[in-house]
Amino acid sequence: MTSGILALLTDFGSRDPYVGIMKGVILGIAPQARLVDLCHEVAPQDIVEGSLLLQSALDYFPPGTIFVAVVDPGVGGERRALAVRAERHLYVAPDNGLLALALRRDPLREARQILPGPYTLGRISRTFHGRDVFAPVAAHLCRGVPLKDLGPPAADLVDLEMAANERQGRLLRTRVLHVDRFGNLVTGLHRSECPSPVEVRLAGVSLPLLETYSEAAPGAALALWGSSDHLEISVNRGNAQERLGAGRGTMVEVVLED
Amino acid sequence: MTSGILALLTDFGSRDPYVGIMKGVILGIAPQARLVDLCHEVAPQDIVEGSLLLQSALDYFPPGTIFVAVVDPGVGGERRALAVRAERHLYVAPDNGLLALALRRDPLREARQILPGPYTLGRISRTFHGRDVFAPVAAHLCRGVPLKDLGPPAADLVDLEMAANERQGRLLRTRVLHVDRFGNLVTGLHRSECPSPVEVRLAGVSLPLLETYSEAAPGAALALWGSSDHLEISVNRGNAQERLGAGRGTMVEVVLED
Amino acid sequence: MTSGILALLTDFGSRDPYVGIMKGVILGIAPQARLVDLCHEVAPQDIVEGSLLLQSALDYFPPGTIFVAVVDPGVGGERRALAVRAERHLYVAPDNGLLALALRRDPLREARQILPGPYTLGRISRTFHGRDVFAPVAAHLCRGVPLKDLGPPAADLVDLEMAANERQGRLLRTRVLHVDRFGNLVTGLHRSECPSPVEVRLAGVSLPLLETYSEAAPGAALALWGSSDHLEISVNRGNAQERLGAGRGTMVEVVLED
Repeated sequence: MTSGILALLTDFGSRDPYVGIMKGVILGIAPQARLVDLCHEVAPQDIVEGSLLLQSALDYFPPGTIFVAVVDPGVGGERRALAVRAERHLYVAPDNGLLALALRRDPLREARQILPGPYTLGRISRTFHGRDVFAPVAAHLCRGVPLKDLGPPAADLVDLEMAANERQGRLLRTRVLHVDRFGNLVTGLHRSECPSPVEVRLAGVSLPLLETYSEAAPGAALALWGSSDHLEISVNRGNAQERLGAGRGTMVEVVLED
Repeated sequence: MTSGILALLTDFGSRDPYVGIMKGVILGIAPQARLVDLCHEVAPQDIVEGSLLLQSALDYFPPGTIFVAVVDPGVGGERRALAVRAERHLYVAPDNGLLALALRRDPLREARQILPGPYTLGRISRTFHGRDVFAPVAAHLCRGVPLKDLGPPAADLVDLEMAANERQGRLLRTRVLHVDRFGNLVTGLHRSECPSPVEVRLAGVSLPLLETYSEAAPGAALALWGSSDHLEISVNRGNAQERLGAGRGTMVEVVLED
Repeated sequence: MTSGILALLTDFGSRDPYVGIMKGVILGIAPQARLVDLCHEVAPQDIVEGSLLLQSALDYFPPGTIFVAVVDPGVGGERRALAVRAERHLYVAPDNGLLALALRRDPLREARQILPGPYTLGRISRTFHGRDVFAPVAAHLCRGVPLKDLGPPAADLVDLEMAANERQGRLLRTRVLHVDRFGNLVTGLHRSECPSPVEVRLAGVSLPLLETYSEAAPGAALALWGSSDHLEISVNRGNAQERLGAGRGTMVEVVLED
C-alpha cells in the first residue's frame, strides 16, 4: 500500500519547467496523487548532497510515500533505473548511489530494474528520464501497479563513495556535505556514529558543542546536532559559511572522549 | 470551521528540504489538507519583511485559511509558540511580532500558547519547530482540533518594533521594507495612512505618483500604490532597485497636502 | 471539459507571495482545482522565454489542462486579456505573444477577450492582473463556466516577434533563447525545422551533434536535440554557459546538407 503521496527530489532547480512537466505526467496517470516538492535545489549532479537531503526527510513522511529522486549525471548512458520497496517507503531513482543513505536507514526489501514498457512513456528521450521514466513509473506505483511488473530484480545497487568519516585514535574527521540557506554547515557525521565528543574544531579553532543556537552569543560560532541529527556548524543569528569562510568539502574534526 | 487550506510562509528558502519535510508532517496528520506555498524567500530571520508579506495575502484566501508562518530567530529559546484565531483566518507562528501586521487587519479573537503534547511531534528539536511544533499543530487544527486544546490562553503578544512611519508637519517619512523580484521598492506606508500626498521623494528626487507603470516613460521612475496598497517606487519596464541605487531600509519621503 | 488541472507559468519568481496569492484566489473559487507550478522564473518581462517554456510543457499535461500564463509588461495599459480554447488545452494570458508558440503546436479553436465582470475580482488593480483577472477567470473555467461568458470574441492575437531563424543557402542561424539550470543553451530551432544538419557552430567553433551528453568526453561541448526537441548546446558533466562564454542571444549556426 502507498500513502498516495509522491515526494520529489531533484537537481532541476526552479529556472526551468522540468519539475512542472514531471507533475503533468504524474497527474495524467494518477490524478489523485498528492505531490510534495521535497527539494529541487540539490547542487547540479551532486549525488552525495541529494542522498543526504533525501535521507533527512524519511522519518517525517507517512509510511508508503513514494520518493521520486532524480540527480542523474549518467542519464542516457548505461546506468540502471530503479524502483525500490524498502521497509517504510518506496523509491524511484537512477542507480548511482542517490538512494544509498536512505537505504541505510530504511532497509531494502525489493529492487527492480525499470525497463521501457507500458509504465514508461512511449518515447524515451536520452536526456530527461525524470519525465519519461521516473515520473510515469512513480505514478503507476501510486495507482497500485506491483513492483515486479516494472522489470527484473536488481541486485548490487551502486553504493555511495562519499568521503567517509575517518577515525585516527581519538580524532574523527568528517566533511561539510551541505550548506543550508542560513549558512549552517551540515557535515556527514550522524549523531549515532559519535557517542562521546569532547571537542569540535574547524580550521584549528575549537567550537563549543551546544544544544541550540541561542546558547551562543549573537555572532558566535558553535557546533550542534542539527535537526536531522547530523553535526552542524552554525553562527547564532549569523551565517557560518560567510563568517568562517567555510563551505562544502571543508573538514571538521571531532575529538572523542579518551 | 477551516477552509481546509494551509498557507505556508517561512524564511527557509528552497535550497533545503525543510518546507517539504513540514508538508510530510502535515499530510501524515491531515491527508486532505490543501497546501499552498505563500512565500519561503523571506530574508533570513527578517520578521518585519515576513510580517509585511503575510499581511499582503490575507484578503485573497478563503475565510478559515490556516496560515503557518515561521520566521523564527529565537527558536529553541524562551519565545512562545502561538496558535491564533482571528476574525477571518487562523495563524500558527512564533510569538515574535511576525503576526503583528496581519492582526492589525484581521482582528484577534483568541490566542493560545502551544505546549508540547499530543498535537506536537513526540520529540521536539531545539532548532526546527516548523517541523516539530507548527506543522503538526496546523494539521490538527485543519482536522478540527479546538484551539483551546493546544495550551493556555496567551496574552500580550509581541508587537512589531518596525521602523514606524514618522510625521513632521507636512512631511511623512517611511522606509523600503521589501524589494520584489522586479526591483520594485515596497515601503511600510499603507494607503489608508496617507490620505492626500502631493509629492513623493527618494534621495531628494521628486517622483510622480501615478496609477500604473505604463503612465511613466520606459525607464522612468515613479511612485504608485502597489497591489497590496503600500506605497511603491518603481521604474517602468525597468528595475528601481538597480536604477535608483536603493534597497531595503532606504528612506522615502511623502509631502502631504497643506 | 477540463482536466481539473491548472498549470501556472509566470515571471513572478519566488521572492514574493504573488504566486501564492493567485493560488488563494483560485482555491477560493475552485476548491478542487489541482494546481501545478510550471515555472515562475521566466526572466522578468521576457515574453519570448515564457512562450518557449510554456510550449515545451504542452505534450505532457492531460488534455483539458488550463494554463495560466502571466508575463505581462503591459499590465494596466491597453493590452487585452485573453481566454483561449485550443485543440488540446485552455489558456488564460495577456495578449502579448506569450501564447504564440503554444498555439503553433496546439491550434486555436476559440479566443475571448476577458472583460471585467462576475468572473474577475470586484476591484481590479492596475498592476496585478495575475491575481485580479487571470487567476479568478481560470478558476471559473475550471468550474465549468463557458468561454463565451467571459467576453467578446478576440481576433488577431498578437504574434511573437521573436528573432526568427534565418536561412542563407545551406546556412541556418538561430539564437539561444533560454539557458537552463545546468547551463545548457536552448535555441529557438525546433527539430522539425532542420531536417538534415551536418554541422553546428558556436562562435566559429564546430560542435559534434550527438544523441546524449555522455557520448562526449567529460568537459567537452556538444550539440543535441534537447528534451523539448529544440537544438541545445551542452557540455558533458559541465556548464556550457560558463565553459563557452555564451548566453541568451548568442548566435548558433547550423550547416545543412547540400
